[in-house]
Amino acid sequence: MGKRDEPSDFPDNEKSHLLTRRKFIESTVYLSGALAGGALIFPSETVGENASAAIPATTPPASPTLPKPIVPNEVVLAQKDPSMKVLTERPLTANITAEYLNDAITPTNRLFIRNNLLTPDISAAGHTLTIKGLVFKPTTFTLEELKHTFTPVTMQGMLECAGSGRTAFQPLPKGTPWHPTGGFGCPQWTGIRLKDVLAFSGVKTEAVHVAFFGADFGEVPTAPPMVRSIPLSKAMDPHTLIVWAINGEPLPKIHGFPLRMVVPGWVASASVKWLVGIEVLDQPFRGSYMDDSYRIPVSPVTPGTKMPKETVSTEAWPVKSVITSPPQGMKYKLGEKITVSGKAWAGDDDIVKVEVSLDEGATWVKANLDKPTDKYAWTIFYFSFSAPRTGYLTILARAMDSKGNLQPISGIWNPLGYFWNGIPRVGIVIEKS
Amino acid sequence: MGKRDEPSDFPDNEKSHLLTRRKFIESTVYLSGALAGGALIFPSETVGENASAAIPATTPPASPTLPKPIVPNEVVLAQKDPSMKVLTERPLTANITAEYLNDAITPTNRLFIRNNLLTPDISAAGHTLTIKGLVFKPTTFTLEELKHTFTPVTMQGMLECAGSGRTAFQPLPKGTPWHPTGGFGCPQWTGIRLKDVLAFSGVKTEAVHVAFFGADFGEVPTAPPMVRSIPLSKAMDPHTLIVWAINGEPLPKIHGFPLRMVVPGWVASASVKWLVGIEVLDQPFRGSYMDDSYRIPVSPVTPGTKMPKETVSTEAWPVKSVITSPPQGMKYKLGEKITVSGKAWAGDDDIVKVEVSLDEGATWVKANLDKPTDKYAWTIFYFSFSAPRTGYLTILARAMDSKGNLQPISGIWNPLGYFWNGIPRVGIVIEKS
Repeated sequence: MGKRDEPSDFPDNEKSHLLTRRKFIESTVYLSGALAGGALIFPSETVGENASAAIPATTPPASPTLPKPIVPNEVVLAQKDPSMKVLTERPLTANITAEYLNDAITPTNRLFIRNNLLTPDISAAGHTLTIKGLVFKPTTFTLEELKHTFTPVTMQGMLECAGSGRTAFQPLPKGTPWHPTGGFGCPQWTGIRLKDVLAFSGVKTEAVHVAFFGADFGEVPTAPPMVRSIPLSKAMDPHTLIVWAINGEPLPKIHGFPLRMVVPGWVASASVKWLVGIEVLDQPFRGSYMDDSYRIPVSPVTPGTKMPKETVSTEAWPVKSVITSPPQGMKYKLGEKITVSGKAWAGDDDIVKVEVSLDEGATWVKANLDKPTDKYAWTIFYFSFSAPRTGYLTILARAMDSKGNLQPISGIWNPLGYFWNGIPRVGIVIEKS
Repeated sequence: MGKRDEPSDFPDNEKSHLLTRRKFIESTVYLSGALAGGALIFPSETVGENASAAIPATTPPASPTLPKPIVPNEVVLAQKDPSMKVLTERPLTANITAEYLNDAITPTNRLFIRNNLLTPDISAAGHTLTIKGLVFKPTTFTLEELKHTFTPVTMQGMLECAGSGRTAFQPLPKGTPWHPTGGFGCPQWTGIRLKDVLAFSGVKTEAVHVAFFGADFGEVPTAPPMVRSIPLSKAMDPHTLIVWAINGEPLPKIHGFPLRMVVPGWVASASVKWLVGIEVLDQPFRGSYMDDSYRIPVSPVTPGTKMPKETVSTEAWPVKSVITSPPQGMKYKLGEKITVSGKAWAGDDDIVKVEVSLDEGATWVKANLDKPTDKYAWTIFYFSFSAPRTGYLTILARAMDSKGNLQPISGIWNPLGYFWNGIPRVGIVIEKS
């Protein structure tokens, strides 16, 4: 079947899961915009979550090879909360820590940024989505057609980068240095159900995986395209969406304008941005973002060792909680009421319990839960107490999912540093009243 | 009462708790040995557990000021297990990690080394111990007199440096960089009860603390002497001993030959080595090892901050356990029986329970306990299982003391990095059978 990421004779070969995103784009009507000038173009990019840290580039050289316009980082970041911290510039990644995520619904300007390539500047006019592969009725939809053919839905759903929390692992794996409480968010999304589109197209019985093609591109033509596939069962989940709006507004350009996938509860790389194509396949897509990055060992390995031969692609996040209030170092008077609040989530499962400890895990007390109205929204927990003494006091939290999995003290170490879900700890100071 | 560490008009003033160790020595018949030659003398030392890391000294300059002979580090270390790792050379400190402490009774050559000053080379002949201060009958005993006047006892007892485990704290406090599982041991001691000696001397009603004077000395005359005092109640504990033998043999020179204190369960600095004097006081001794080092804040402080004004001198260790087997990285076949063993202790209290977790603290199973025959010996725990899967597997342990205190996930941070007692973790590898 040829080399990874090499195009086959798309679009005629329906089994072409080796198809590249670039080839996919060329096969559609999407050819918007002029070639980019030399404005703000980055000379290289790294691949996936095993990317090394960014090389700052204040005066990046022009590149004549970019096929389409991009959105400069400054423009992206001007729309973001000042508390958001840039982790790498090429690709652009940025996180905001848990204390800024105390809202029930994550504000758009506080949603983390995780590019794998550049930020394409795509116009809504003329944008289309093509459904291909193992379907009876391959179709290319305009945005308007998608919005009017299928029933729009609005629901809240978790997105979290696979490497979220990576810096809590010891030893530190390579990759975007996400803060222990950075790299996730839970906005409200508006779009249509992928299952409705798949039903419209008619999925063939050989179908196993569904691949999503992003229109983002790297600075060099050889940059692997952003394509991820998910199992058909997850694709048919009524919460897996093709989305055009976040928190009631059109998607910002950094978050996939005009169209993106939202595969809630799973590693966010599955939620391909700048969506131009969907292909139904008889096996997982073969490509860098499936085969090289976003993988973990089948069995846990010794911390610090290399990736073993037997690996699996990352899918649903394990059970996790974070404390979003109080912020680290907050001061209270002795006797004052202290309310702890935070968020918990568990991939495809539900949160059934969150407990809080004020004695480093020796004893745990159940927190109150605000159950989410949407299945893949996080669960909000809160707990009030008065400190029994002055001085520094740590607050720990741990969640339990509907399968009985309890959040571990430490996440399972893996070479690419994915799925950190260790027990969060926030320290506060109690002063004499 | 004058400046710290300054001698008063000893030996006539019975309330002289400001007495220095050097003055104390001079007031006794102990004046053994010639002045040290230039053999292996160290130009400086640091004080207590807030000492900075060692400066390697391969060819230390001679010092004509040393009052007595010392034992060179090479001689000390030649008697030790090769697995013992030197942490600092001036003062000499060395630890051995938990996997070498799997014996029920710690072998002498594996007992940690924690000097605050140099290692004095003292001869048994002519060595005396003077009892002074708030007693009716101040007395100076020879070694033979001590052995024949009082009833010898043999018992096992824990010693642990206050800074043991320090490197597990984040941020790392200054001081001897003890491994998270280094800096403790539980040998068998032979000597006499301090309480018997105090009863012989007759303690006055004003007595509050009992100070121990070591004969060790620094390279410079201004080095603070090694003097620690403990409350009278602890001094009267039948397990607080004046000791001349370890594991059935005379004390090695590094461990206090010919005579030392053993205050089991408490910070090991209370167990003054090279004991030459005991003084009963109406308040805690004032000196560097009481007032500058071996202190913790009254209330816990924010990690990374300075020592607050309100502090207390360190005394009993909090509840703690370590896993001594298997060693980190041990390999097993799937289905093979794995036996975890370790040790637990709790300062002045007893261990009532040790639990083991194979899922990062989500669930805990009770381990079997071998209760210690002596109160201040550690409790041995063991637990057998077969691994449920291949790959890396972590084993955690936590102990509970007779007051109901359960070992915390993380120790309470303090500026000098004392009392680390966080839950230990050992990782093993399960291979296909």
